[in-house]
Amino acid sequence: MFYTIDILGTIAFAISGVLVAINKKMDLFGILIIGFVTAVGGGTLRDLLIGNTPVSWMKDITFTYVIIASAVFAILFRSKINYLRTSLFLFDTIGIGLYTLVGIEKGLNAGLHPIICIALGTMTASFGGVIRDILCNEIPVIFRKEIYATACILGGITYFLLSKLPIDNNIVFIIAGIVVIVVRLLAVKFKIALPTVYKD
Amino acid sequence: MFYTIDILGTIAFAISGVLVAINKKMDLFGILIIGFVTAVGGGTLRDLLIGNTPVSWMKDITFTYVIIASAVFAILFRSKINYLRTSLFLFDTIGIGLYTLVGIEKGLNAGLHPIICIALGTMTASFGGVIRDILCNEIPVIFRKEIYATACILGGITYFLLSKLPIDNNIVFIIAGIVVIVVRLLAVKFKIALPTVYKD
Amino acid sequence: MFYTIDILGTIAFAISGVLVAINKKMDLFGILIIGFVTAVGGGTLRDLLIGNTPVSWMKDITFTYVIIASAVFAILFRSKINYLRTSLFLFDTIGIGLYTLVGIEKGLNAGLHPIICIALGTMTASFGGVIRDILCNEIPVIFRKEIYATACILGGITYFLLSKLPIDNNIVFIIAGIVVIVVRLLAVKFKIALPTVYKD
Repeated sequence: MFYTIDILGTIAFAISGVLVAINKKMDLFGILIIGFVTAVGGGTLRDLLIGNTPVSWMKDITFTYVIIASAVFAILFRSKINYLRTSLFLFDTIGIGLYTLVGIEKGLNAGLHPIICIALGTMTASFGGVIRDILCNEIPVIFRKEIYATACILGGITYFLLSKLPIDNNIVFIIAGIVVIVVRLLAVKFKIALPTVYKD
Repeated sequence: MFYTIDILGTIAFAISGVLVAINKKMDLFGILIIGFVTAVGGGTLRDLLIGNTPVSWMKDITFTYVIIASAVFAILFRSKINYLRTSLFLFDTIGIGLYTLVGIEKGLNAGLHPIICIALGTMTASFGGVIRDILCNEIPVIFRKEIYATACILGGITYFLLSKLPIDNNIVFIIAGIVVIVVRLLAVKFKIALPTVYKD
Repeated sequence: MFYTIDILGTIAFAISGVLVAINKKMDLFGILIIGFVTAVGGGTLRDLLIGNTPVSWMKDITFTYVIIASAVFAILFRSKINYLRTSLFLFDTIGIGLYTLVGIEKGLNAGLHPIICIALGTMTASFGGVIRDILCNEIPVIFRKEIYATACILGGITYFLLSKLPIDNNIVFIIAGIVVIVVRLLAVKFKIALPTVYKD
């Protein structure tokens, strides 16, 4: 099941990258690359920082196929993709729930401190979008107005709090993932954003 | 012979970086760094992703000397470098032919899938320029209008198709490199570019 | 003593990142991340390039706490931080002295050429700021007008010249660090900058 979620998340992330690249008037190669880095960038950064090389997407060709197919689909149906907006948003949200926890698990396997593990989880879920925005010459959107990382952090904290209780690890995993998803959904529904700080 | 090509490619890449940095009114340090990352950035990213560390240029000091010398040369003769435009373009083009194949070989040695190897080859040849453009605060030019990566990809495909035939590996290597070079030359001569995709 | 300097440098770097992020009107998450990458970005790049993973800040949670505390402090007292400008500038300057030498030592331990070691030292001291500027969508300030890297390079050269003499290594270390600090202080005091190069 986790593998299916991973694929759905990859599709959503890749399509989000493709749509940004089209808006930036990139050529086909640029569109494909932006789709790719949006989908795998977070996991790649995580793997590099903990020394898990070759990085994950290089070891399972499925992700490359899924991203290329998603990019082709998004290019062909770019004018109709609005109808899929809700599905894509759901895939994306479920994806960040999973990616946060995958990042945490990889950090635990590397013997790292819980706070570092949460940072790795958040990175896995959100830095694909950061790299996408840098390549598109924008200040990353999650640094400005998205409740996205906050959802990941709260999910990560839930994971570590629950894992101190006598609960099966799979259930802890699922509850923490649901926390990420619910926080994200509520934040979008009620337009909650982190405050910015102005110099007085 | 491959080492000589590698050096010529490095010179061409470094000079291209230096000229962009001069146009951006950077200081001497900035100019040197941009020359450096343009020359070694693609190989560095490849080495990081497959876990080949310390990365290549750190293990052979020759490249550092060549890049510094190229940067000094380009700064001193910046007003006359137009006369060398054709030579530099040729060095650059031969360089990407070689770098594509070096990347592919490193991927094969790491036991990776052919498609991933082609991606690594393309990265080796083209991501120095991407990092250059990011550091100069531009959307990378190869995402917008250059047939550059496409030449690398076609050369990579040629390599894998021919390597299934009973041909000596060195010859396959050379033919695939020539494909990269010829596609690039034809694309520039006939001003062929990849299409962009507009939202309808 | 070196550990204390490391912490002071981390505080200065983190606060510099936080102030830039506030000026860019980022939200709290963005501010924290920019503070973080400014503080640890240079060392992270160094560790990745030489293959020292998991990277240093992941192995010592103290730095994460110091950075978070610095960020909270800088946000709360952002309107009064000007009074601390001199202290912060001193911490920052002492920090780059130390970081340059830490980078050099890590390069020596990895068996690398002295020039590469100096490059690693300079990177450790200065690339946090480069990554900060890229994430904030600016051309990195040290490529344009700061004597910063030059101080690191001169300190690095001093280190290697003195280490050929029969002097205790700790003393060489301290003298080289002082060279970095003095060059930086003089450059700022007398407004010395590297020349830029214009196309004639």
